[in-house]
Amino acid sequence: MTVAKQNDRLDQLHRRFEVKPGTKVRLERHDPAWAGGGEISRKAARAIAAAEMDGDLAELAKSQELFYAGRSRALLVIFQALDAAGKDGTIKHVMTGLNPQGVRVSSFKAPSSQELAHTFLWRYTEHLPERGMIGIFNRSYYEEVLVVRVHPEYLVPQKLPAKKFNGRFWRERYEDINAYERHLTRNGTVILKFFLHVSKEEQRQRLLERIDNPEKHWKFNPADLGERRLWDQYGRAFEEALTATSTKAAPWYIIPADNKWMMRALVASILSAKLHSLQLRAPVLPEAEKAKLAEAREELLRED
Amino acid sequence: MTVAKQNDRLDQLHRRFEVKPGTKVRLERHDPAWAGGGEISRKAARAIAAAEMDGDLAELAKSQELFYAGRSRALLVIFQALDAAGKDGTIKHVMTGLNPQGVRVSSFKAPSSQELAHTFLWRYTEHLPERGMIGIFNRSYYEEVLVVRVHPEYLVPQKLPAKKFNGRFWRERYEDINAYERHLTRNGTVILKFFLHVSKEEQRQRLLERIDNPEKHWKFNPADLGERRLWDQYGRAFEEALTATSTKAAPWYIIPADNKWMMRALVASILSAKLHSLQLRAPVLPEAEKAKLAEAREELLRED
Repeated sequence: MTVAKQNDRLDQLHRRFEVKPGTKVRLERHDPAWAGGGEISRKAARAIAAAEMDGDLAELAKSQELFYAGRSRALLVIFQALDAAGKDGTIKHVMTGLNPQGVRVSSFKAPSSQELAHTFLWRYTEHLPERGMIGIFNRSYYEEVLVVRVHPEYLVPQKLPAKKFNGRFWRERYEDINAYERHLTRNGTVILKFFLHVSKEEQRQRLLERIDNPEKHWKFNPADLGERRLWDQYGRAFEEALTATSTKAAPWYIIPADNKWMMRALVASILSAKLHSLQLRAPVLPEAEKAKLAEAREELLRED
Repeated sequence: MTVAKQNDRLDQLHRRFEVKPGTKVRLERHDPAWAGGGEISRKAARAIAAAEMDGDLAELAKSQELFYAGRSRALLVIFQALDAAGKDGTIKHVMTGLNPQGVRVSSFKAPSSQELAHTFLWRYTEHLPERGMIGIFNRSYYEEVLVVRVHPEYLVPQKLPAKKFNGRFWRERYEDINAYERHLTRNGTVILKFFLHVSKEEQRQRLLERIDNPEKHWKFNPADLGERRLWDQYGRAFEEALTATSTKAAPWYIIPADNKWMMRALVASILSAKLHSLQLRAPVLPEAEKAKLAEAREELLRED
């Protein structure tokens, strides 16, 4: 296959998971257990995914060097998902080969009272990646229209100007988020957003595994079960948020998460293709700077 | 060799590079080109270093998982050196195999005017690692007694209460730093400090390489030559700072940096041994929490 054809094929694959701006997301139409379509065996699909992932990770590490050297763009990668869908594992497996000097992972827990006294976007802003850096958000300001939507009582300590928390309120939050991301992309930040889509049965299996394996106990939070009981409410909150905030500049991808190998390979592939599309090159010095290099060279050689 | 003997041997090796608290550092007594002593060939030493480094990096990645899971200690690793000694490369090669979720690298450039309006330790505090995290400082508050010492004019915008910038002034800064690190170590942060010790000739070669290789141009800063002219002043500033601030709780290591492979292998070895000495174990749940796990298990199984 020629490189151009391969890129076309990849493009097609990635578009399959991208939420096209303006389309209404229905999660039931996205198979969390998708494993490469029906034509090839699961085993073959898994082998292909593993091989492609190795290539993508090598490509990613190379791109990152140039990205860091160029300092002209920033990359923000957002992960959202229900518990045990695989955010931590995906970040670990996709990002571990990168130079940590160019990567910063930010995890967001419950907000402090100082953070609650600001607008809902404030506490995330400090963690945005600067030019040259890859910023990974393990959860993000999308929690403000997901967990907060499912638990509107979390709005109380935000002490908002009195208003009803109706459809309009949430639409305004989506609008604020879109405007925020538009500002970021206009000013040089590339944004990719991944929703790791796990099935209810697979989540159950993974939670049981955390309980049954003492080495995984620290990952288990009994409160996760309370959230699990709200499965349908979360589904609706995700559907509405993904529908309203997938834009051309900052698209959402719905990644099938029941097969960890597929989830990780897809994320690596989309990330790698995105960086590749930026056509990164080592920065070239302006002529004036080159003259300074020549002078410096002279000085160093004169030391002999 | 038994494990105990091996650990003894390593301990001895590491102590060779540690600045023993209370001893006066004389850099001329530390060979920047040290490559394993005279008994074995350079080639053999290099092969041993490479093999040990692989083992240490695997060990490091394993320790980091436990470190992150335990959330009981933080690790602060400080790198200081003259230009082109290898800070960036060492961080890249030693840290790339770690899960970026548990590592944060902070680089410090010239301070902003807001930062200058605070005390000299203020701007570093925000970047300290929280429990469970490894924080890497690529340069640090030690710049405040190194570059600032060599360029006392940098003190002017710090608008300090009028005083003379004499020996006593610098001794007070060392004292402040020691007290700051004592506070950190008392409260659960483990601190390791590496001075990457490069020779003047090796620095010259590396700067020339940056000039002669267009792919490395972005790393070259013509101002580095100005600092090179102050070589002896920097040497004295380092000697005095290392002498005054190597403590039992937060020791300095003087790492020979002329051979990159040796520098990286030593840093990996010291780090790995330090984490190993913490005897990290997967966190064990208290009994009350275990009861909750059993309940959660019941609930998940009832779903069938």
